[in-house]
Amino acid sequence: MQTFSFSPIGLIKSPYQQKFGIPRQPGLVPAATVTLELFPPFNHPDCVRGLDAFEYVWIQFVFHDSTDEGWRPLVRPPRLGGKQKMGVFATRSPHRPNNIGLSLLKLEKVTIQGGVTLEFSGADLLDGTPVLDIKPYLTFVESKPAARSGFAKEAPSLLAVQWLPEALAQLELLGLSNEFKLLVEQSLAQDPRPAYQEDEQRVYRMMVAQINFAFYIKNKIAFIFLIRKPP
Amino acid sequence: MQTFSFSPIGLIKSPYQQKFGIPRQPGLVPAATVTLELFPPFNHPDCVRGLDAFEYVWIQFVFHDSTDEGWRPLVRPPRLGGKQKMGVFATRSPHRPNNIGLSLLKLEKVTIQGGVTLEFSGADLLDGTPVLDIKPYLTFVESKPAARSGFAKEAPSLLAVQWLPEALAQLELLGLSNEFKLLVEQSLAQDPRPAYQEDEQRVYRMMVAQINFAFYIKNKIAFIFLIRKPP
Repeated sequence: MQTFSFSPIGLIKSPYQQKFGIPRQPGLVPAATVTLELFPPFNHPDCVRGLDAFEYVWIQFVFHDSTDEGWRPLVRPPRLGGKQKMGVFATRSPHRPNNIGLSLLKLEKVTIQGGVTLEFSGADLLDGTPVLDIKPYLTFVESKPAARSGFAKEAPSLLAVQWLPEALAQLELLGLSNEFKLLVEQSLAQDPRPAYQEDEQRVYRMMVAQINFAFYIKNKIAFIFLIRKPP
Repeated sequence: MQTFSFSPIGLIKSPYQQKFGIPRQPGLVPAATVTLELFPPFNHPDCVRGLDAFEYVWIQFVFHDSTDEGWRPLVRPPRLGGKQKMGVFATRSPHRPNNIGLSLLKLEKVTIQGGVTLEFSGADLLDGTPVLDIKPYLTFVESKPAARSGFAKEAPSLLAVQWLPEALAQLELLGLSNEFKLLVEQSLAQDPRPAYQEDEQRVYRMMVAQINFAFYIKNKIAFIFLIRKPP
């Protein structure tokens, strides 16, 4: 069987350093800002000339943290409550025969300074994600607002998010920014629980931007009760 | 440098067996129908369960016929008349650092019969294209009708297409189908000429679905004057 080999053009720097809690699609968490520093020789300013005229760009990347987990013909999309199985090619699961991902990100900034660094918002990418390609979004080709879209017709419904007093106090004590607060809120609103878990007693721990926090979910509200900065 | 290797899940069967004349984006030539027969073990019906509920799907593929041609930081997009250079990452040129393509195709048919064969319309793919992945189009994430889209804001303007009498007669003589006629007309309407060529004396030859034909372009009209079936 023929194989094709590709080397990354750069790696993603993301506040998501664990898989748990990463938004399931791009665009759902606008506060999720990531950067991509291009490797030489792709970091010549010429390579991105004209890119900033595009509001959205495609990132083709490797699900590098899912490679060893293999793939199966059927997967349980979180959107279907984990109860129904769909064919792997009918889902965006990271566990695919060729584990290449595709994310439409908002291009926020192109920085040309001793190389090229791109900043994107609305990311659903793990820290260290190897990027294979960047392409402009072609609105006249790729925007199909009326397309039938199977089991994923609209954005998933959101949870409300509440900071309990102790967590709010820690937030202030640690001098954490409003951006961080927003990122946590938007991430939790997506309901990061595996679809089949609806145990209201269960405590979840998550890390975003190097900060640990703990929450539970009750009646469609995520309550954050603890924040910790690892030593 | 780390590399990632991928093997095709199947090959595209396309009426376009030469690069010249392939539509420059998907969707522009609805009559361009291609099929994809999945290789084992990806050809188990489970792998595509639920896919037919999606109207459009992404095909991630290898520009296999452009691999040896390398890439350059700057390219001249046909859309800009070949006069302006853009960064490779701001274009959809096949000559990329990692020559992975991305096409949004309309899924016409899923056939489960001793394997899995998918039929797509609106293709811009060369015959034999190795496919790495199939993903559903997520309308709520990927449809951005108002996105700023740089130098490629709308579909390129079309040429009119005329069959000269001799070509029409050959069309009938060879018993060619209406689908073939439509495919040729829609393909030529895209103006397959390299952007910098506007020589009205020049005759172009093209092959579609194993049939050769010749045309010239004058005043935004493509005149087809000859059809030949290779021996």
